[in-house]
Amino acid sequence: MVRLVPRETKFFELFENMSSNLTKAARLLAETLGDMENVQVRVRQLSDLEHIGDDITHTILTRLNQTFITPFDREDIHKLASSLDDVLDFIHAAGERLVMYKIGVVPPAAAELAHIIIRQTEELAIAVAMLEKHDHVLEHCVEVNRLENEADTVARENIGKLFEREKDPITLIKLKELYEVLETATDKAEDAANVLESVVLKGA
Amino acid sequence: MVRLVPRETKFFELFENMSSNLTKAARLLAETLGDMENVQVRVRQLSDLEHIGDDITHTILTRLNQTFITPFDREDIHKLASSLDDVLDFIHAAGERLVMYKIGVVPPAAAELAHIIIRQTEELAIAVAMLEKHDHVLEHCVEVNRLENEADTVARENIGKLFEREKDPITLIKLKELYEVLETATDKAEDAANVLESVVLKGA
Amino acid sequence: MVRLVPRETKFFELFENMSSNLTKAARLLAETLGDMENVQVRVRQLSDLEHIGDDITHTILTRLNQTFITPFDREDIHKLASSLDDVLDFIHAAGERLVMYKIGVVPPAAAELAHIIIRQTEELAIAVAMLEKHDHVLEHCVEVNRLENEADTVARENIGKLFEREKDPITLIKLKELYEVLETATDKAEDAANVLESVVLKGA
Repeated sequence: MVRLVPRETKFFELFENMSSNLTKAARLLAETLGDMENVQVRVRQLSDLEHIGDDITHTILTRLNQTFITPFDREDIHKLASSLDDVLDFIHAAGERLVMYKIGVVPPAAAELAHIIIRQTEELAIAVAMLEKHDHVLEHCVEVNRLENEADTVARENIGKLFEREKDPITLIKLKELYEVLETATDKAEDAANVLESVVLKGA
Repeated sequence: MVRLVPRETKFFELFENMSSNLTKAARLLAETLGDMENVQVRVRQLSDLEHIGDDITHTILTRLNQTFITPFDREDIHKLASSLDDVLDFIHAAGERLVMYKIGVVPPAAAELAHIIIRQTEELAIAVAMLEKHDHVLEHCVEVNRLENEADTVARENIGKLFEREKDPITLIKLKELYEVLETATDKAEDAANVLESVVLKGA
Repeated sequence: MVRLVPRETKFFELFENMSSNLTKAARLLAETLGDMENVQVRVRQLSDLEHIGDDITHTILTRLNQTFITPFDREDIHKLASSLDDVLDFIHAAGERLVMYKIGVVPPAAAELAHIIIRQTEELAIAVAMLEKHDHVLEHCVEVNRLENEADTVARENIGKLFEREKDPITLIKLKELYEVLETATDKAEDAANVLESVVLKGA
């Protein structure tokens, strides 16, 4: 049942599609957080992007199972697809929180976190595009990790402030979770960067 | 130290035991959520089923470490055992929340989620039983994933309602977590289905 | 690009450094929880230990990518480094909660959990030190798992009490999370013990 699919299965192309879709989602999330006018519509668009991402992930994993020769480690292809998919899931989850919790006013720090996510997805997209030639991939991975640290500080400080200032526990629960979901998206981006680093170091 | 254990190590049989134990736990959870009379007793029974599951998982992983030839990918055996074990852990965790938080009245949506979990565990049990012959496994995996989407919608809608209607923050925290734990059980069932799909696609 | 690094890459030594750093962090956390005088200073010291741990993890993973022959399964080296790093992350996260949430009075159960974590890290350090010779590793793994069960019970009971007694929802959120972060550290220690067990069972 295993078919030998040539190396041309275009894993690199699929990963480029995936990361460009991811960047689009990150930008849409930042727009949504910056202007709450059409939240419902925009979150539906985020869901569409998430479905596109799911389809690409599924294609990568299915082809992986049917391919003997892969352009880099089988396990790393799996991990890279999963971690990029996770970033998208958490971007989408952040948008969903706005609707589910009817968050009307978004604190500036949430938009700030979304902008850090945009920069991470842009760095990931560059690193993925360079992966085949192994050129300069590492420096973009380092930048993704630096951005994760930055996001961590922003989230921690603002959750701290929230506990000082917000006296309504239900509002506090909502905003705390929004920050956490955004911060988790940056963790998943770091996971993806670590896989890319590992691929380059193995010199595959 | 590695012993060559023949293919007859009965991984398939162990997985069938595991998934039938899992279905039992899912049914017990749904009963518990539907009738809060004997919660303490039932949650203790859930703990017993969880220990049985732990033992089967441990047997699978130990044998895996001592076996040269496995009926399907070593890594997939590990992932399948872990993800089925995770489903059971979250079923048990949902039951535990009832006791730990002294939840007296369970909202109907929690029972609805438990019924989705039952259907997932039944589908997983069928898929596992068919795994050796590779017959029709995929369609049951697709159904497990569809059920996960259904659970996701039920959970999201009901957490949204909870934030609209529940004015007591402490009750809100309890019920939100109950929904989340139930929804996570359905995610773990999806993970198990994805491993099964992968095993079939590899044509092992 | 792959260099053949001899078996002497000293993975065992790196893991010993990692687990001794981990034990140090666990002790520092318990001190901090026991005496809230200099929380800020101590949490900064915890951050330093976390950075040291990150560096050792990074060294292990980088060398792993550049090494052909490893003293035990490549995948297990990766999992062991990651799970020990996770324990450290959650120890650090527990300390951070004290500062971020300005927790002034720590309930005794939190210190009790920290002491369980100390014992787990001591057992892990012994198991790691014995790993090369495979001597008595398993009994220390069993003890780490037993301690996880103990922590689970302590956390569950005390979260239950918290919901009974604490009427301020915001304080409840803070302390619940502190317990959960501590309990997750013990889960990650169990993950590390499971990898060690697996290495020994494979007889690598």
